[in-house]
Amino acid sequence: MALKSKHLLGLKDLSAQEIKLILDTAGPMKEIIQRDIKKVPTLRGKLVVTLFYEPSTRTRTSFELAAKYMGADTVSIATSTSSVTKGESLRDTAQTLAAMGADAVIIRHSAAGSPVLLTRYIKASVINGGDGMHEHPTQALLDMFTIQEKLGRIEGLKVVILGDILHSRVARSNIWGLTKMGAEVRVAGPPTLIPKGIENLGVKVFYRVEEALRGADVINVLRIQRERQKKGLFPSLREYALLYQLTPERLRLAKPNALVLHPGPMNRGIEISPAVADGLQSAITEQVTNGVAVRMALLYLLIGGGN
Amino acid sequence: MALKSKHLLGLKDLSAQEIKLILDTAGPMKEIIQRDIKKVPTLRGKLVVTLFYEPSTRTRTSFELAAKYMGADTVSIATSTSSVTKGESLRDTAQTLAAMGADAVIIRHSAAGSPVLLTRYIKASVINGGDGMHEHPTQALLDMFTIQEKLGRIEGLKVVILGDILHSRVARSNIWGLTKMGAEVRVAGPPTLIPKGIENLGVKVFYRVEEALRGADVINVLRIQRERQKKGLFPSLREYALLYQLTPERLRLAKPNALVLHPGPMNRGIEISPAVADGLQSAITEQVTNGVAVRMALLYLLIGGGN
Amino acid sequence: MALKSKHLLGLKDLSAQEIKLILDTAGPMKEIIQRDIKKVPTLRGKLVVTLFYEPSTRTRTSFELAAKYMGADTVSIATSTSSVTKGESLRDTAQTLAAMGADAVIIRHSAAGSPVLLTRYIKASVINGGDGMHEHPTQALLDMFTIQEKLGRIEGLKVVILGDILHSRVARSNIWGLTKMGAEVRVAGPPTLIPKGIENLGVKVFYRVEEALRGADVINVLRIQRERQKKGLFPSLREYALLYQLTPERLRLAKPNALVLHPGPMNRGIEISPAVADGLQSAITEQVTNGVAVRMALLYLLIGGGN
Repeated sequence: MALKSKHLLGLKDLSAQEIKLILDTAGPMKEIIQRDIKKVPTLRGKLVVTLFYEPSTRTRTSFELAAKYMGADTVSIATSTSSVTKGESLRDTAQTLAAMGADAVIIRHSAAGSPVLLTRYIKASVINGGDGMHEHPTQALLDMFTIQEKLGRIEGLKVVILGDILHSRVARSNIWGLTKMGAEVRVAGPPTLIPKGIENLGVKVFYRVEEALRGADVINVLRIQRERQKKGLFPSLREYALLYQLTPERLRLAKPNALVLHPGPMNRGIEISPAVADGLQSAITEQVTNGVAVRMALLYLLIGGGN
Repeated sequence: MALKSKHLLGLKDLSAQEIKLILDTAGPMKEIIQRDIKKVPTLRGKLVVTLFYEPSTRTRTSFELAAKYMGADTVSIATSTSSVTKGESLRDTAQTLAAMGADAVIIRHSAAGSPVLLTRYIKASVINGGDGMHEHPTQALLDMFTIQEKLGRIEGLKVVILGDILHSRVARSNIWGLTKMGAEVRVAGPPTLIPKGIENLGVKVFYRVEEALRGADVINVLRIQRERQKKGLFPSLREYALLYQLTPERLRLAKPNALVLHPGPMNRGIEISPAVADGLQSAITEQVTNGVAVRMALLYLLIGGGN
Repeated sequence: MALKSKHLLGLKDLSAQEIKLILDTAGPMKEIIQRDIKKVPTLRGKLVVTLFYEPSTRTRTSFELAAKYMGADTVSIATSTSSVTKGESLRDTAQTLAAMGADAVIIRHSAAGSPVLLTRYIKASVINGGDGMHEHPTQALLDMFTIQEKLGRIEGLKVVILGDILHSRVARSNIWGLTKMGAEVRVAGPPTLIPKGIENLGVKVFYRVEEALRGADVINVLRIQRERQKKGLFPSLREYALLYQLTPERLRLAKPNALVLHPGPMNRGIEISPAVADGLQSAITEQVTNGVAVRMALLYLLIGGGN
């Protein structure tokens, strides 16, 4: 079996079977990382380019490591969008990367849809590393891999996505992926941060976090933007922490062994209390390792031997 | 046969035989890239350093890839010139790189002559990656490689260099290289952007682009600096586009299969129309691949096995 | 024999035997560099991360090369301290790096004690690449390696550390290391730049450089901060150069073959005269090579085969 597209643009476009294939492939990849047999020549002679128009250490490094662990060459391009004719400039950059022999390009861009645009101009596999408020599919895949690894399955689980749903590409990709895999998805947060009509994506909306948490198997806590405070928005950071922070008390409303996830970097004391972040139910650190494994799986499936 | 100098400072110093050697070596290198047999251990154990005092993604990445494809280690140093005792600081940087074991240093600097200065302080091969308005020899070599590959020869061809000749190190290196190889070089652009006395370099000057294009085999379109508009210079971008943009209509004045080149990044709609940039006669994307091949050839000739 | 700790946080914590082990291991490493047999697979499959919260080209590049020369993968993270909850953010960064599989992390940070803090959160070996005004142990190790290589021993030598002792982590690490190894350490500089009570570390204090230099075997010249001039501090750069610059005349007061060291980058004409910097007694360039060798030795001892 293989992925239908040679690109990964978002989880909206993947079937449950394809998501399952990626998660199943990530398992053996994680063993490679953990056994410390780091150089697997699977992608030898391949060129993986990270093209980041927004700053990121975590996602970029994770992709670079995934590529290096399989023997690929990597090139990092960190840039800022030029003020004019953005589309054109992306096009020429794409053609330049293609001509240099890129086999896969991971793009992060503040404009939703940039990865799709990139596929028009380049033969290489395009992987969405986060585009505006649209999707961040590899984050959702590593979240799902962590859930499956820890709880044995995704289907039928009650997963709470907690926080700023409105601006979060992580939330969006998780909703697409989790609903396809048969989970019951609950989104929880202040009304100002939950988009109207999100019920149409098949999720339940909760404005009181306590209600959302009751009986939950997984809580995926999103990062809240610190800029809110400066701009005087409602809720402020202080108000948010009071009403929505995942505290040990609130966590007790979920199932006894409910799993806590966070895409990082955390604002400890704002959206999550330190005791929860570092507690026994937290898989936050493990998510990072799983991120490398899932990205190895993706690169293998998209540009590895078979293709 | 070998190159006489272990440095590449500019095409002014190379003989036609030496240029031919580089172009002939780039051919097999391109095959290596295209066949995807990326790791050639020719430069294994060598250290290639890119030392860029001006920002550049394209040239730096091209050199890095060329080095990696042949198994060399690479180190990238991106820096900004300190405000004082520039010469001294370059000297100490050179000695640092030498002591770290650099075999080749590619330098880009806003001050013409910096690469020559660097050779005084370092045993490594120095390659000029662009110095002020002086030379950008690897760009001209890849332009010539592209011409030879597409048209079978350089000698006797009519090559138009179109645009801001005054500020362009690409123009200067092309003029040196092309005249040595026996091409007829025409420079075309607004009088304010063509330096006085450039005829002495053996080129013909045209202020009307239409005249320059008649019977041309190659048009090498230079990038126009967008800052012109802000500074209120003549011609403005709008005026330039009107009078000098390479449009399909103007291109028809050249020979039927005339080749269109551009060193990139392009300002589409200013110095070149999108239809020409993406048209059948454009080799602009291929220039990028050729850039990697030419730089592989150079590194091979300068620091490869023979030396 | 092995190092007692898996971290290198400062020379204060090392025994003379451990320092000797590192210096003795660096010898063969230097031969590897100089014979140009660059790829030694000793650290194959290991991941070395440079985590720099302050800019640095020299130290970072030196560690990167040391790692690459032994076959390790490297990841560079250059970042700026976030304005809030610094400790927390370092903690989460540490856990991220750990989860990505880092075997060694070299940290540079403006806050003294950051490397110690990092060891609490990460299983990897932590190497101090310079923390505030506290320590810069690998710089002192390469200084000592250079002294031992050039003069055959450290014990019993008279070593002058000249300049801004107050703000210098290089000075502090040298003092710890040299006194442990049995050298007589003299610190010399303007009273405003020598901390009160430094005699308690076992060094002699001189406010007149001429007195300090008499009979010296080694002079380690520290970099003076150019910002002093702007801030109108005493001594200004001009005053400093007049009273404390290491000139050929002053150097003659030391032993005939006294060794001149400088951690770089130099301010030629301020703390050191060009004639001395480039003179026969200067080992400044060789210090750079030795820096790579010492860091190879360290990585080998900390994360190499034995562990």
